[in-house]
Amino acid sequence: MGDVAARFAEIVGEHNLLSGAQVGEDYARDESLTCEPRKPAYVAKPGAAEEVAALLKTAAEHGIPVTARGSGSGLSGAARPREDGLLVSFERMHAVLEIDADNQVAVVQPGVTLTELDEQTAAAGLAYTVYPGELSASVGGNVGTNAGGMRAVKYGVTRNNVVGLQAVLPTGEIIRTGGKTSKISTGYDLTQLIIGSEGTLALATEVIVKLHPRLAHSATLLAPFNDLDQVVRAVPKVISGGLEPNILEYIDNLTMAAISYNEKLSLGIPDEVRDATQAYLVVGLENRDGDRLDGDVERAGELLGELGATDVYVLDGGSARKLIEAREKAFWTAKSSGADDVIDVVVPRSEMPGFLAKVRELATAAESGAIGCGHAGDGNVHLAIFCKDPEKRHRLLHDIFAAGMAAGGAISGEHGIGQAKKDHYVELEDPAKLELLKRIKQAFDPRGILNPGVLFD
Amino acid sequence: MGDVAARFAEIVGEHNLLSGAQVGEDYARDESLTCEPRKPAYVAKPGAAEEVAALLKTAAEHGIPVTARGSGSGLSGAARPREDGLLVSFERMHAVLEIDADNQVAVVQPGVTLTELDEQTAAAGLAYTVYPGELSASVGGNVGTNAGGMRAVKYGVTRNNVVGLQAVLPTGEIIRTGGKTSKISTGYDLTQLIIGSEGTLALATEVIVKLHPRLAHSATLLAPFNDLDQVVRAVPKVISGGLEPNILEYIDNLTMAAISYNEKLSLGIPDEVRDATQAYLVVGLENRDGDRLDGDVERAGELLGELGATDVYVLDGGSARKLIEAREKAFWTAKSSGADDVIDVVVPRSEMPGFLAKVRELATAAESGAIGCGHAGDGNVHLAIFCKDPEKRHRLLHDIFAAGMAAGGAISGEHGIGQAKKDHYVELEDPAKLELLKRIKQAFDPRGILNPGVLFD
Repeated sequence: MGDVAARFAEIVGEHNLLSGAQVGEDYARDESLTCEPRKPAYVAKPGAAEEVAALLKTAAEHGIPVTARGSGSGLSGAARPREDGLLVSFERMHAVLEIDADNQVAVVQPGVTLTELDEQTAAAGLAYTVYPGELSASVGGNVGTNAGGMRAVKYGVTRNNVVGLQAVLPTGEIIRTGGKTSKISTGYDLTQLIIGSEGTLALATEVIVKLHPRLAHSATLLAPFNDLDQVVRAVPKVISGGLEPNILEYIDNLTMAAISYNEKLSLGIPDEVRDATQAYLVVGLENRDGDRLDGDVERAGELLGELGATDVYVLDGGSARKLIEAREKAFWTAKSSGADDVIDVVVPRSEMPGFLAKVRELATAAESGAIGCGHAGDGNVHLAIFCKDPEKRHRLLHDIFAAGMAAGGAISGEHGIGQAKKDHYVELEDPAKLELLKRIKQAFDPRGILNPGVLFD
Repeated sequence: MGDVAARFAEIVGEHNLLSGAQVGEDYARDESLTCEPRKPAYVAKPGAAEEVAALLKTAAEHGIPVTARGSGSGLSGAARPREDGLLVSFERMHAVLEIDADNQVAVVQPGVTLTELDEQTAAAGLAYTVYPGELSASVGGNVGTNAGGMRAVKYGVTRNNVVGLQAVLPTGEIIRTGGKTSKISTGYDLTQLIIGSEGTLALATEVIVKLHPRLAHSATLLAPFNDLDQVVRAVPKVISGGLEPNILEYIDNLTMAAISYNEKLSLGIPDEVRDATQAYLVVGLENRDGDRLDGDVERAGELLGELGATDVYVLDGGSARKLIEAREKAFWTAKSSGADDVIDVVVPRSEMPGFLAKVRELATAAESGAIGCGHAGDGNVHLAIFCKDPEKRHRLLHDIFAAGMAAGGAISGEHGIGQAKKDHYVELEDPAKLELLKRIKQAFDPRGILNPGVLFD
């Protein structure tokens, strides 16, 4: 064991430092479909912020690149370590430190999974309302990528639900940002700057998240449409109707077929309706009051009919849960169907029809497939890309990203850039902004040790 | 007219450049009670982002400090110019460029006042839901200070309601951040970094704000309590009750007396109730449906009774409007009552009882007055400080700010630091964070031309 390894082991304890052959395959990758696994030289499992600080100081002294890892469920390779690097795995720091009902916040360590947090908040009648598809994801990882998910249409993404951090700077200092209060006008907002920075600016060691009352009553509506355009055109009307849906998803017919088959989903939709359907809109509603919910369901049903749905099904609890779970597993379905990449361009929701038409045109021209579903309320279009040839795929992705940006959107709504989309990002982003981002990176990380090669080089 | 003045005049047009004796008193100050007016060398009134960019480039070449000004209604001296500096006044850039109902956003120029924006969104059945006390304030100014206001308890502050910017960097580039979409995970969030930076990082030349449906039905409840502690202890319970109040304010009895007298407010509260009252809680409710609102009002009334209110008054529309307006003018009331400073410490809402007790203790010890009201739902305590002696006042403020920070809060919830509270901020902030902020400032503004002396030196 070299000097550095010995120092790392001294910091976290010998049994919490892996190197060489001890490093398992899992640490070599996240769930990105295009980033080849790559084992790090060291894996350290710190137990406290002070240990993280000491690790970063040591890494900075020796010029060792550092990658942070939560649950490794990211989709763009931001947790894929460097071969010569140190992977800081937060698996041991997974305590819910406090559930504070008066301030409606929880204080958690970064390694806490969403499932763990959900269980503990439920006991207090509260909920952390960010639900990305993968609930084994960690809160720290969610902070890194600014994770979203289906409920973002009502509750916002990670960025909107984190009010404070304890974070370790790559220069070794431990700072606190924000607090248990949702408003602060006192200096630059470092909380928001660190969220979504994909482990390139600082490592969160504590996260203060907002909680909401867990509402007792919910309902899920499924509305088939004969035309995909009609679905996405319906979305702004559903939003402006004031029903505050907590889920507003579209699922195209191919994706519905795939997830139904994969998850053995039977929704009781007659064959003739299913065959004529081009896409579905899924609308989730919730209320603290059962009667009010019933009123909203009725109103939503009428509205969807007016907007062109060929029928509206109010799913029973079991079917609803299965459909939502199946939708959340759409990534796994895409993967097992042989998708070559998954992307999540975001556009203003009014631009979805035009953007999806452009995607169809580009995919057809490239003799490739692009099928999907999406957080329709947010304009966040998830596409599974089927295109084996890497060069052709690169051009297709480039054109799809460029079309999304031309429509006033961005490459990623919630997955992040990571290593997987870095080349596209660097190619397409405004050079003045990119230079500014690099200077900000430099302000945090003068030695460039935190996740080099993620976002930009 | 010197060379620089000639160049500025060339950029914005001669009639849009003031210098020397042409510069009026209004440009010398904002509404801070403690910052002495100071006339700038030049006032430029640009009409477009390109003109702002050219102004900043010229200023950078000549090392001239630049201060941005919206309506000048800020409370901490962030719009107070330097004597040798250029004041960029956004008064000509006050167009609402677009109200986009499908995406529920508006695109506005920074000089648009909240009143102007409110009128134009009302016509579309929508609302921009950030209402700081002063509606003559500009959106650009609100971005600079991350303004809040009474509705923040439901809708959040400026930060939560701005999704994109066009901004000019002090290096002269014009960039766009964010967009008409509420989620993006593509690079660092520059929108959030610029919001609340008090004109020290970049100048916003276009702002994309979120809009919400304007709800048809609203009600205002006024609940007197015989004990201030009881009021602030009631707050978390009202929040967790799930009624989603859009206003949740406390007003102490002295402040209520002052605003009632100043605004000729008559709320029909019997003398014996008023005399026994130590503080009031004001609860605003709203709903798209009148019956639901009635149900919520009833439930809120019961809840407030359980929490110790000696009575609950449902104010009629006229009285409610007058009370809210009077509360919004509390700053002017404090000023005309001879207050020596106004501050707005924010603490976790559960910490308000302890913090207010500490404030009373500190004020008494300093033989000074500290009376107030506050955005109770947010823990944002607004205090009028009565203490003539500057040194004694400085010590008192230092101790109050330190107490707020010790309670997990910050110096300012929505007013910002500006020049007025800079010394306190620099004294009390974690040095590691302050150094990081300075490096971020350097990343944006290598020549240090944007608002030097604001936040830190």
